[in-house]
Amino acid sequence: MSEFFNPRLASLSAYTPGEQPRDKQYIKLNTNESPFPPAPEVIKRVTEEALGTLRLYCDPTATALKNALASRYGVKAENVFVANGSDDILNFAFLAFGQSGVAFPDISYGFYEVFAHFHGIPFEKIPLQEDFTVRKDDYFGKEKMVCIANPNAPTGIALSLSDTEDIVSRNPSRVVLIDEAYVDFGAQSCVSLTQKYKNLLCVGTFSKSRSMAGGRLGFAIASKELITDLEKIKYSQNPYNVNTLTQLLGVATLENDGYYKENCQKIISARRYTEKALCALGFTVLPSKANFVFAKSERISGKELYLRLKEKGILVRHFDAPRIEAFNRITVGTQEQMELLVAKITDILAE
Amino acid sequence: MSEFFNPRLASLSAYTPGEQPRDKQYIKLNTNESPFPPAPEVIKRVTEEALGTLRLYCDPTATALKNALASRYGVKAENVFVANGSDDILNFAFLAFGQSGVAFPDISYGFYEVFAHFHGIPFEKIPLQEDFTVRKDDYFGKEKMVCIANPNAPTGIALSLSDTEDIVSRNPSRVVLIDEAYVDFGAQSCVSLTQKYKNLLCVGTFSKSRSMAGGRLGFAIASKELITDLEKIKYSQNPYNVNTLTQLLGVATLENDGYYKENCQKIISARRYTEKALCALGFTVLPSKANFVFAKSERISGKELYLRLKEKGILVRHFDAPRIEAFNRITVGTQEQMELLVAKITDILAE
Repeated sequence: MSEFFNPRLASLSAYTPGEQPRDKQYIKLNTNESPFPPAPEVIKRVTEEALGTLRLYCDPTATALKNALASRYGVKAENVFVANGSDDILNFAFLAFGQSGVAFPDISYGFYEVFAHFHGIPFEKIPLQEDFTVRKDDYFGKEKMVCIANPNAPTGIALSLSDTEDIVSRNPSRVVLIDEAYVDFGAQSCVSLTQKYKNLLCVGTFSKSRSMAGGRLGFAIASKELITDLEKIKYSQNPYNVNTLTQLLGVATLENDGYYKENCQKIISARRYTEKALCALGFTVLPSKANFVFAKSERISGKELYLRLKEKGILVRHFDAPRIEAFNRITVGTQEQMELLVAKITDILAE
Repeated sequence: MSEFFNPRLASLSAYTPGEQPRDKQYIKLNTNESPFPPAPEVIKRVTEEALGTLRLYCDPTATALKNALASRYGVKAENVFVANGSDDILNFAFLAFGQSGVAFPDISYGFYEVFAHFHGIPFEKIPLQEDFTVRKDDYFGKEKMVCIANPNAPTGIALSLSDTEDIVSRNPSRVVLIDEAYVDFGAQSCVSLTQKYKNLLCVGTFSKSRSMAGGRLGFAIASKELITDLEKIKYSQNPYNVNTLTQLLGVATLENDGYYKENCQKIISARRYTEKALCALGFTVLPSKANFVFAKSERISGKELYLRLKEKGILVRHFDAPRIEAFNRITVGTQEQMELLVAKITDILAE
């Protein structure tokens, strides 16, 4: 740290991304990426001609991409915002709408707390129930912004659409942000509710179901008014926040929706296999609607299993945090990867 | 605007990017982009294999890119920061180091004032001298951060290295940010001074001399301590701020340094031609070390010339601002484009 650094910021704890060790090749089941590459047609779209246009600024309005997202989700382009990953949108939203505080589950995406600290926003962590579900009533009538991941991470547990609607409708004077990073693996999206509730901000990403974590593309769908507010923040910080190639890849991805839907089905199938196999090994596995499972065993601690799997070349994510230290979050990869995972865990438990 | 928007932010004026009209094909001399595409070798680096890795998160430490920049600039990787365009870095720096205020020239990059407003930072606009040069003494002993573009925009006028050093050395208790977006077209970079002054933050971009405006890549070079502070902000907001393709393109660009240096020479040569030709037409042209010229004529107002050129298919940038409304900022394109510009201006003046 320098002597020049803003003292308020100096005391912050930043987010810790999932580890990306380079000491050897691992099977990466630790950061919820897709095991499948982008669709071949998407890759072909990055032509020499497209690369040649890099000399020009990207379209700050991202019109083609917004139109494609609007068409995919049955909304208007004015209801769509895009950014450099959904983290950018969460960050903007905390700043734009969190001035009277923000409430989120005690166990959820770790960045919510980082954003709150960063912007100096008071926050309330609402405990999940014993079974790690969200109790919707806990979020009614909050006089602050509400932020919920659906499905939640790292639990994988989803909210029903009617529960989401109840939370949104019971907070008419504050924004309810639903972070749908993992929604495409079997949960119910609340996008349709954005037509009805002007306080609902639905956030999505191309990093999980759309195989573009390294391309950085997040989007939000909401009332025109909320989108206008997010645009104002973007134009006050970085109008060209989504680069030319990412805009191009985003449009091409949406044109190949079928490919990504098939991949989601493969993940769901591999998830079912993993859940069953882990249960057969005596694990407790939370009911996941995401591309990961959250599992613990009485026979081995969470930390120990994480370390032993790493030794064997498989990375999963362990959180050294209250209530969940017994668990590991295991990304669902291909069927073959999950079979290997189960075999390695079987070995570890037998050793 | 929504009823939920943070009232402090609601009153802000955002930045206005240069216009990107789509009604017809223009010769774009309005946003200081390069007329030359990225080097062919750079484009070839974006292979199917590289695109296939988009499913994985990008390297948040940007190690390969930082190493390449460190090697290019003769510093260590710990002295390098990278971000999603240099606007991102300016934004971070205002937040990190601007807590006691910031001073910048009254005529400069319009975003400085936007960032100051955005972060609620008090700012002082120091008038350029009558000839639009920076008077270095005006920046001595400021008890606030100092931010100067070198060369300045939209004037194109550069500071000497010794003047820059004087400003840096006379503000030991505050950060001096030198924005070198246009430095590669003939001005003197202060990168070497970062080894000597821990309060100097030197900011660069790939958008101008490196033909990558649409790829979004900015970098900063400074003491390890200043870089650590910027990293903390990055990890508190968006650890994956530079995507995989941009990191890859950045490394490849640095490996083809010769191509870009040649392009800079072509721009400098076309700039000389333009200056001479405009002077011959009676224009006043400020002495530019950038990839644009700032010029005015007694025979036609700045606004009128801008509009007439637009009619004729050439976009330049006019600022409706005090002291400079008589001028236009004209990006230096290829020699052919500049000859066409001069021919059109000759026609306009004759009409």
